[in-house]
Amino acid sequence: MRAEIVAIGTELTNGQKLDTNSAWLSRRLLELGVTPYWHTTLPDDMETILAALDLARQRADLVVITGGLGPTFDDLTREALARLAGVELVLHEPSLRHLEEMFARRGRPMPERNRVQAMLPRGAEVLPNPLGTAPGIWLTVPRHPCACPTEQKPWNLSLAKPRTLLIALPGVPSELQAMWQTEVAPRLQQQLQLGLVIRERTLHCFGLGESALEEKLGELTRRGRNPEVGITASDATISLRLVARAPCEAEALALLDADEAFIRQQLGDLVFGTGEEELQHAVARLLEQTGLTLATAESVTGGLIASRLTQVPGVSRFYRGGLVAYQTAIKANVLGVPMALLEQYGAVSAPVAEAMAARARQLFQADLAVATTGVAGPDSDERGHPVGLVYIGLAWSDAARSCEVRWLGTRLEIQSRAAKSALNEVRLHLLQVARATN
Amino acid sequence: MRAEIVAIGTELTNGQKLDTNSAWLSRRLLELGVTPYWHTTLPDDMETILAALDLARQRADLVVITGGLGPTFDDLTREALARLAGVELVLHEPSLRHLEEMFARRGRPMPERNRVQAMLPRGAEVLPNPLGTAPGIWLTVPRHPCACPTEQKPWNLSLAKPRTLLIALPGVPSELQAMWQTEVAPRLQQQLQLGLVIRERTLHCFGLGESALEEKLGELTRRGRNPEVGITASDATISLRLVARAPCEAEALALLDADEAFIRQQLGDLVFGTGEEELQHAVARLLEQTGLTLATAESVTGGLIASRLTQVPGVSRFYRGGLVAYQTAIKANVLGVPMALLEQYGAVSAPVAEAMAARARQLFQADLAVATTGVAGPDSDERGHPVGLVYIGLAWSDAARSCEVRWLGTRLEIQSRAAKSALNEVRLHLLQVARATN
Repeated sequence: MRAEIVAIGTELTNGQKLDTNSAWLSRRLLELGVTPYWHTTLPDDMETILAALDLARQRADLVVITGGLGPTFDDLTREALARLAGVELVLHEPSLRHLEEMFARRGRPMPERNRVQAMLPRGAEVLPNPLGTAPGIWLTVPRHPCACPTEQKPWNLSLAKPRTLLIALPGVPSELQAMWQTEVAPRLQQQLQLGLVIRERTLHCFGLGESALEEKLGELTRRGRNPEVGITASDATISLRLVARAPCEAEALALLDADEAFIRQQLGDLVFGTGEEELQHAVARLLEQTGLTLATAESVTGGLIASRLTQVPGVSRFYRGGLVAYQTAIKANVLGVPMALLEQYGAVSAPVAEAMAARARQLFQADLAVATTGVAGPDSDERGHPVGLVYIGLAWSDAARSCEVRWLGTRLEIQSRAAKSALNEVRLHLLQVARATN
Repeated sequence: MRAEIVAIGTELTNGQKLDTNSAWLSRRLLELGVTPYWHTTLPDDMETILAALDLARQRADLVVITGGLGPTFDDLTREALARLAGVELVLHEPSLRHLEEMFARRGRPMPERNRVQAMLPRGAEVLPNPLGTAPGIWLTVPRHPCACPTEQKPWNLSLAKPRTLLIALPGVPSELQAMWQTEVAPRLQQQLQLGLVIRERTLHCFGLGESALEEKLGELTRRGRNPEVGITASDATISLRLVARAPCEAEALALLDADEAFIRQQLGDLVFGTGEEELQHAVARLLEQTGLTLATAESVTGGLIASRLTQVPGVSRFYRGGLVAYQTAIKANVLGVPMALLEQYGAVSAPVAEAMAARARQLFQADLAVATTGVAGPDSDERGHPVGLVYIGLAWSDAARSCEVRWLGTRLEIQSRAAKSALNEVRLHLLQVARATN
């Protein structure tokens, strides 16, 4: 079963508006066991729309179209579908009544132009739109203009000739989403009867590059496996997405469990979370588990560690607070790092990172503190330290340690990645504590 | 001149990740006077990529490709381009050296697998990537596999046969954007020499809703005007994007200047910046202008104000530092807000916001301090204050004031909007100071 998504609107091809519908529709199709393999975005131009829909119907079994169903001159989807099917547009009385009611409810007369929204390709099924004026369209067209009778699509044996299903929905996300859930998904589920269940799981890792991490996984990311394992890097977090296909849910989950176990065995503590989890959620969970409290002292990350931690609801139980000590004077006067240390090693140094953490621990009366100092750029510091050099200090009951990391990227990327490195050091420390106390 | 954009990545067709590159590239192409009329998004699948690129090269004069240049098995863009051009992949020594240097700078050995990123189609021009490991590719291929000599593309008369230009860039937005500005745009500008000049300008506003702001602008946002004015809201920042078309740059800029003057007259201090500027840049500029220093004390925003301020290079000259006082005990013990005040009014109150700002000002020896306290949710606080209620305190030489804002949204949205409100209060105060001293 091959599915494509077509988004129509000049505001999308111009980059004026971000197309979020295609990604949303993709996730919904995947839930039904259908993998969308091609997205197309087109301007409000009849020639281009006809060319693209003609290609899509030849390649795909299902084409979901979004946009171009409004009442204005540049809304061309209805007309394009009619031309593709070789039929005319005819007035759909129930849709016209719905339109008139919508305007009546808002106490406005219906502009004559809106009438076009009730003109639909002859033979199409109409999908009601309770939230808006544009009804959706459900229409099958021959796969090829001269439909070849020898070809059969396995999922659609009830049809004598090979046909492609086209579904057109409005571009307004709330309308599209409501219509998908109430009209489209149930019909598709009934028609598809694929008998194949697809389940997915995502594991997030931190602390190793994408390719080095992939090397540890052997053949796991080779194409054609089941589960299929995709690897993506986003701001130094490496994510492994597992997609399993099986005849039933239990088998799909068993496949995922087996792969997850293998990945965790190979990657160990590099794996920090699943699904929507980020490093701060892993840290918050471990703080809760160990009962320890945390404080922060940030120079190069400028409050980003604190900000990420406080994204987690209820973190005030474990996160005591933090200091943004961006200037050397603040490191000395407010945080209390000895001036001698700052002068001897410079603000960007391992001893200062450790001292910042130790002092933050005392100031905030926390069990554990993490500190950062480094060079975010764009220029290197007065001692000539390179952009991207960051020291992370960690202090706990009477002990402290530090590590050096080097990140590449823009100022914001270095800050973000340094904050992640710091959260990761806290996570690794808490993991040790948790294991020692178990 | 027909241009298409192709984004490659299964995470995009699966809807796991939103494709922002295509929209960004579209805007950049429009600036060069090239209207992109077709976007395609594809999975990491060789057959699909080859089919799509083959169609694109036949339709278009220029195809910009993003993604699929990483080091892993599912990064197929290099191989696909080589196959399309009918050439082999060959080692590009300068790219290999750059790769090795990138890893050396981070003190890590280069995984063998990364070597593939320096394997590029024979005959391609290589676009250096200063921020990442994947070089870009600039390559022309015959429009048709059997290049028909009768066809000519007007913009590329120097080539004997009709060819399509393919440009492949990495999928990491920061790398793609940097490479576009430094490598791609200048080369394209030189090659295209098109007749119509398109210039755009974006003005950002804060402090009023989208529709209320639009009402102040009269007919400005009507379609068909030149400049065309689009209005978008993103996380409470309202942006006006002006796109002017004219025969020459001077005329286009004059059109933009006239509209900008009208907008600034109508909106006054609601406008805080242009282009890529955010509120923190406006604050940093005003701090520099007034010579004043700033400190922060954050409860509900948890370090987000500090983090945004320290995104600005060189801000350490004016930003003294900040305290994240998330727990009431920290507000009292570290920041020094009188316990009596905390007990009488509660931590979420106007007097506490003012006291936090006043204490932060003293602690960090700053001219001005801003503080936040409020309820980010998901639950209301123990005194029953609603989610989204935020007090912002401002303290300067011997005086303090506060204001109350209420934001709707998720926890992260409330934190982000509260941080923006606080930065905006600082901005408005600094504007007054700057005007009084002028």
